[in-house]
Amino acid sequence: MPEFLHLIPPSEALATFMAHLPPQPRIPSEKIASSEALNCVLAAPIAAPHPLPPFPRSTVDGYALRASDSFGASPSQPVYLRLVGEILMGTRADLEIQPGQAAIIHTGGMLPKGADAVVMLEDTQIVSETEIEVLKALGVGQHVLTTGEDVKAGEIVLEEGTRLRPQDIGGLIALGITEVPVVHAPSVGILATGDEIVAPEEQPRLGQVRDVNSYTLSALVRLAGGIPVRR
Amino acid sequence: MPEFLHLIPPSEALATFMAHLPPQPRIPSEKIASSEALNCVLAAPIAAPHPLPPFPRSTVDGYALRASDSFGASPSQPVYLRLVGEILMGTRADLEIQPGQAAIIHTGGMLPKGADAVVMLEDTQIVSETEIEVLKALGVGQHVLTTGEDVKAGEIVLEEGTRLRPQDIGGLIALGITEVPVVHAPSVGILATGDEIVAPEEQPRLGQVRDVNSYTLSALVRLAGGIPVRR
Repeated sequence: MPEFLHLIPPSEALATFMAHLPPQPRIPSEKIASSEALNCVLAAPIAAPHPLPPFPRSTVDGYALRASDSFGASPSQPVYLRLVGEILMGTRADLEIQPGQAAIIHTGGMLPKGADAVVMLEDTQIVSETEIEVLKALGVGQHVLTTGEDVKAGEIVLEEGTRLRPQDIGGLIALGITEVPVVHAPSVGILATGDEIVAPEEQPRLGQVRDVNSYTLSALVRLAGGIPVRR
Repeated sequence: MPEFLHLIPPSEALATFMAHLPPQPRIPSEKIASSEALNCVLAAPIAAPHPLPPFPRSTVDGYALRASDSFGASPSQPVYLRLVGEILMGTRADLEIQPGQAAIIHTGGMLPKGADAVVMLEDTQIVSETEIEVLKALGVGQHVLTTGEDVKAGEIVLEEGTRLRPQDIGGLIALGITEVPVVHAPSVGILATGDEIVAPEEQPRLGQVRDVNSYTLSALVRLAGGIPVRR
């Protein structure tokens, strides 16, 4: 068998190739807007500056109340509570729920002081402008997202090296992190060899072919987050 | 149950919504360079202007020959052929293989006239500068990619509406199609509602939350090939 047919296995070829590369360079990084960071790779871990949610929130539309007040409530044995107000969206819940009281609350609204559960609208009846019937017994914390239940303050929410997906960007925004350190996209040089290769816009003569691989590889590099450089 | 709790199923809600949209607009298209068309959507089908490969090509390194000459060849009963030249890469194969002759050919090289098969280098021995031993019998067409075997002239290679992947771009380049008609990326308006929502860079007061959904949806729209427009 002719001499040039001496082959080496792929793993050995790759190891030889890698051994001749310079030591892995630290890719430079930069700060960019989180909203523009889709598919970028984090250059540092990201910690939560505050808990999420930052306040206890209702997960349903209904009434904030003390769970103990609903003890034993059922459609045939409703509990009557006095309506003392409404928690408006986007405002601090200033009122305090006393025993025997309830307040209108909307999904995402801040749980007022004194309350420790929310009864769903569907499980109530309006008696008058100042009174409701509760038709169901509730446990403490029911239909409530407590402070820090999603993310605790200081918790690492995204590791260094993470490639940012839409949901990661949403998480950053939720924490008020509007800028993130990301690594520069690496440039990848592509060198096509072969006497038969001509540029795509050329008319190949018989025996010649167009340079397909450079363009396919360029697109693959771009998909992978790199910058293709055709040589 | 209060009046605002009357619900309709998602399919009905979607049908109502779609019925109120204007008739589907024709999204405008433009011609762009194929090399820049990754992830773009074709505005028209693409037909092959010529067959691929445009000439018969060898799929191995070896010798072009007439398959009939190799009849009965084996390591113990080799067939002797006269070496009449070499098909250089990227050149038209000008020589013609006569019975009892062979020519050096490389992977991707153009099959010369008269030849109808290629024997792999591994299945030959060099006897002298002008003679080789063939150690294996070959069928007609063996180790040869015939004209149009990949794509026939006029064949639709990519349908309208195709979202172009790296391999599609390679295919376009192979056919010398350096420009393609693609539809403009659609703009998608995003409108966040809710009294509790504040911009990401704002410090939410108690009861407020940052506008997470606009930014998550923007990134999803971008991933899907659209242009997000936050209102």
